[in-house]
Amino acid sequence: MIKIKIIPREAFNQLQEMDIDKYAKMSLIADMCRANTLSAVKLAGSGHLGSSFSAMDIVSWLYYQEMNTLHEGIHSQNRDIYFSSKGHDVPGLYSILYSAGIIPKEKFLKLRRIDGLDGHPHISIPGIEANSGSLGMGISKAKGMAFAKNLLKRSGRLFVLTGDGELQEGQIYEALQSTVHQKLNNLNVIVDHNKVQSDKPVCEIIDLRDLETKFRAFGWYVERCDGHDFRQLEQVLARFREINDKPKILIADTIKGKGVSFMEHPNSLKDGNGLYQWHSGAPDDISFLTAQDELFTRIHHALSNKGLPSIAAQEISHEKKSSGVTSEYVSDAFGESLVHLAAERDDIVVLDADLAADCHLREFEKKYPDRFIENGIAEQDMVSMAGGLAIQGLLPVVNTFGAFLASRANEQIYNNTSENTRIIYVCHYAGLIPAGPGLSHQSLRDISLFSALPNTEIIQPANATETRMVVDYCINHAKGNCVIRVVIGPSPRHLNLPAGYRLRPGVGATLREGKDAVLFAYGPVMLHEALEAAEILENNGLTLTVINMPWLNRVDPSWLKGAVDAYSSVYVLEDHAIVGGLGNTILNKMAQLQMLDHRRFGIFGIQGMPAWGTPSEVLHFHGLSGPDLAKSIIKDHEVKA
Amino acid sequence: MIKIKIIPREAFNQLQEMDIDKYAKMSLIADMCRANTLSAVKLAGSGHLGSSFSAMDIVSWLYYQEMNTLHEGIHSQNRDIYFSSKGHDVPGLYSILYSAGIIPKEKFLKLRRIDGLDGHPHISIPGIEANSGSLGMGISKAKGMAFAKNLLKRSGRLFVLTGDGELQEGQIYEALQSTVHQKLNNLNVIVDHNKVQSDKPVCEIIDLRDLETKFRAFGWYVERCDGHDFRQLEQVLARFREINDKPKILIADTIKGKGVSFMEHPNSLKDGNGLYQWHSGAPDDISFLTAQDELFTRIHHALSNKGLPSIAAQEISHEKKSSGVTSEYVSDAFGESLVHLAAERDDIVVLDADLAADCHLREFEKKYPDRFIENGIAEQDMVSMAGGLAIQGLLPVVNTFGAFLASRANEQIYNNTSENTRIIYVCHYAGLIPAGPGLSHQSLRDISLFSALPNTEIIQPANATETRMVVDYCINHAKGNCVIRVVIGPSPRHLNLPAGYRLRPGVGATLREGKDAVLFAYGPVMLHEALEAAEILENNGLTLTVINMPWLNRVDPSWLKGAVDAYSSVYVLEDHAIVGGLGNTILNKMAQLQMLDHRRFGIFGIQGMPAWGTPSEVLHFHGLSGPDLAKSIIKDHEVKA
Repeated sequence: MIKIKIIPREAFNQLQEMDIDKYAKMSLIADMCRANTLSAVKLAGSGHLGSSFSAMDIVSWLYYQEMNTLHEGIHSQNRDIYFSSKGHDVPGLYSILYSAGIIPKEKFLKLRRIDGLDGHPHISIPGIEANSGSLGMGISKAKGMAFAKNLLKRSGRLFVLTGDGELQEGQIYEALQSTVHQKLNNLNVIVDHNKVQSDKPVCEIIDLRDLETKFRAFGWYVERCDGHDFRQLEQVLARFREINDKPKILIADTIKGKGVSFMEHPNSLKDGNGLYQWHSGAPDDISFLTAQDELFTRIHHALSNKGLPSIAAQEISHEKKSSGVTSEYVSDAFGESLVHLAAERDDIVVLDADLAADCHLREFEKKYPDRFIENGIAEQDMVSMAGGLAIQGLLPVVNTFGAFLASRANEQIYNNTSENTRIIYVCHYAGLIPAGPGLSHQSLRDISLFSALPNTEIIQPANATETRMVVDYCINHAKGNCVIRVVIGPSPRHLNLPAGYRLRPGVGATLREGKDAVLFAYGPVMLHEALEAAEILENNGLTLTVINMPWLNRVDPSWLKGAVDAYSSVYVLEDHAIVGGLGNTILNKMAQLQMLDHRRFGIFGIQGMPAWGTPSEVLHFHGLSGPDLAKSIIKDHEVKA
Repeated sequence: MIKIKIIPREAFNQLQEMDIDKYAKMSLIADMCRANTLSAVKLAGSGHLGSSFSAMDIVSWLYYQEMNTLHEGIHSQNRDIYFSSKGHDVPGLYSILYSAGIIPKEKFLKLRRIDGLDGHPHISIPGIEANSGSLGMGISKAKGMAFAKNLLKRSGRLFVLTGDGELQEGQIYEALQSTVHQKLNNLNVIVDHNKVQSDKPVCEIIDLRDLETKFRAFGWYVERCDGHDFRQLEQVLARFREINDKPKILIADTIKGKGVSFMEHPNSLKDGNGLYQWHSGAPDDISFLTAQDELFTRIHHALSNKGLPSIAAQEISHEKKSSGVTSEYVSDAFGESLVHLAAERDDIVVLDADLAADCHLREFEKKYPDRFIENGIAEQDMVSMAGGLAIQGLLPVVNTFGAFLASRANEQIYNNTSENTRIIYVCHYAGLIPAGPGLSHQSLRDISLFSALPNTEIIQPANATETRMVVDYCINHAKGNCVIRVVIGPSPRHLNLPAGYRLRPGVGATLREGKDAVLFAYGPVMLHEALEAAEILENNGLTLTVINMPWLNRVDPSWLKGAVDAYSSVYVLEDHAIVGGLGNTILNKMAQLQMLDHRRFGIFGIQGMPAWGTPSEVLHFHGLSGPDLAKSIIKDHEVKA
């Protein structure tokens, strides 16, 4: 068990009373918040340190020196409002809100837990002003707040932080032009220009070129300064206060990972051979202790150099829980299959929106650089570009998280579909789990978003073996467009497909035989819960057939008849919202085939907005864990009996 | 019957043989194509003249002087490729393709007819290179084509035309930055800078500011010239050919409606008190004849001044068909209700994305300018701005066509929904009809795109009376978010709601009683077809209950039980894709309530991509006209019996 230290709120109060200049004080506050952020992320097992640290000096300065928010109160209608548009830097913001007494300690120590703090900003958390995490929306949202403040005659200024990679999103430019035209001059935007997006330099992904000229051409008042120099920040923000005829934007040059030497991007890029290491995820024990030590040493030196008393840190007990998962990642199998099939077909081109690592595209990128298109965080452009590639006869494979692909580029996907070409869309991070990053990242509506698209099959593989079959099917056999849903995390158990299993369109595979009911499910996460439910039910005298059904909008009628024939209860388990998923597909087919006489039909799926938390917390919250499913099925059985 | 004249293809051939300089020849070709465009739009009863005319000189020059396409052939892999990103200027392009013998005359005379030409570009039409009509996708798509040409070692350049209002779309800026980074220098973009978007000057909607500086800041090679001066176009395009280290963009200053004096924007804006009159729709008879006369007079003078023989025009017979619709527009009632309710509630703010006329928002804009937000063609920004307004406690009513709102801003809508605020989204131009503008404008997936959003009710009123009730419900009574679907065209019949009808959540209204089956439908278009089906069935000895069900994702269980109890056949008619609409809502509820024993259930809806054409053509094509529905129900009845 390693020592995880938290600097308590009282230490920040003590610091406020100390007789040192405000710049030194702010330096200490920022570093103390960094230390707390580091601990919170370590406790959570995941989180975004790089951006939390690059933005820390700016955000601390805003709250402690520039804005009236802490003084007016977070519920005052006339408060200044700050939020981050990128949102993943929220662990840093939480630590500032904790230092100011707004977020209580018991919440702060529960980052990414169901009764704690969301992995991206959520408005239900004290001090959080807007939900973010899907990129590029912040300036637009602040525009609305600024307009409303004018209309309602409320005072208070708006401060929005954006990333730099985020500036690849087109919505940013929509907002830049309309803010000026609509004269919403109460807006202050700060670009946390830390030069690195998820793991590569911005200039390598899609270069932003001369940002100052760009923003000026859009009509903004532009300044640029060192985002770690409090004196410069103070001066720029003072000038912003005086400028009332234009909205204002500050390009703050920052260092990703600032404050922990080996996390700072120049060092980390070198250590990682060009890949930045600390964008997301928690550091291992040794890295954590090294980072913690560096921060605490600097804090103590700063205090002792000024002859000030040291601050007390509290140790938090931290037990590593075994995660209970296998070493299988279906996303690994996806990436390998792509590389494998690309050797046979030179018409395959792969598109990425700055998630190459998470989407397991690095091998393809290395092996086929001419056929790999890095498009930056610009999903609409990526999808329409795929349309153009397909018109010329290539077979594009479009990759990003399902939450972004299906919803942000939906009209572009529809437009492509109308051209009768063939494109493969890959929804990575499909489904509810992991639930730490929160609702902006969990993809639970994508099946419904693709459902009314003609000529498009939606498929989700259950394990690595089936993933290879699915990729092969989509590339070599499908006639129309394909959507592949890929779970991002490790598979919770090794699923055994039937001996000699082959992928056949519209046909599922029985994983476990039972007599009392049949449950259709898909993907490694929910098939595990389904099988667990079956195991529990068996101990309760009920047996359940569990069918892996990878075809989410296509069912072979005669197979379906055979599959449900023996059962008076038919259930579908979604890794998706309860509306618009596999359940609807099967129910419609059963209705069409007149198979609903004297049969119960039920869908288990996510209702309401998805919760954040650990997998087990969130599965249980939505009633979708194995034990919960077993309970529901028993209850249904009793009602029927 | 007025005289509609078409200049035949042979006349263009004759002109090519004439001994005049190429600039005079191009002037004649452009005017002759304008004359043909005018006639095609008049025959169609609808179309976009303003943009067709502003772009005509540029596009004629590209095809006849700059590109190799006509010479290489439209199927050559090495051809130059031109397409318009805005797409609504396609009547002009069709006339050029007709003049060059690529589109046959029988197709050319059938603009917006099912066996003719789509109202927006469709790749199935000879010479059309990409589908467009949903704005902002063109540069991205051309990027894909350029990348593919490089990879496949095909020659041929890419030319994309954009509008200027279209430059408000964020995707444009995504594409501008990635084109440069990806070194797709084979791209030539031409901005048809005609200064007017749908009916107001661009500088009034959302000003574009200094475009040249903007584009240069994104790294493009930029030129600007008079888009009606062939010599200038020639020189710029010659320079473009020499520049290989950057993609190229030409800002072509043009006049909207160029070539017909009263359609040219300076005149038309004056005549229309600041509103441009000729963006879409067909001119009335007198305007048509005046315009035709002006064009033909100029053509004849140009020829006779050079001592050349006149060209022959053919007269096309043109019979006006009575449209068979009422004077009721539900969209009128929507606009009036907004104005009415805004007098009672000062928290209502209305947002528009440059469709204020079509969305019937002008009255609101005039009466409540402080609460009307014109956001330009930037749906994502508009929706996120609404999110910010709602966070501050206002009640935003967000307007644009459903095809754009539901699919282009889907992630932004989800993000707003996650903030537990209240927003009303209005999907104008909902459903299949009118089908002249084609699939980019017909909104047939919006119910499915909203279906998995928690806390969101989707409602579509049947007539003006119910529209007023729905708007009142959404503004004054609903607890969560609302989506209102509004048909854009005139109602085909006056629907009588039951005496004393009040809107009750989840409850429909019986419009006609029958004994043999029940049919649920919604909206003025499909309820008309449903009633027509019932009338036909009655003559065939079958009686049909027709229920208006405005609640598309909410059903009151006890009402539903009563509504279907007496019937062994239950049908749902969608003004939507067959997947993801009201049918799924009712089927799910019936399954949940165990109401499917011994009942047939069927959904009628749009399958595949929607067709373009007149209402009756397209309703029949999809099997959704009254007679088609009656036939299907009779057949189903016979199977059952």
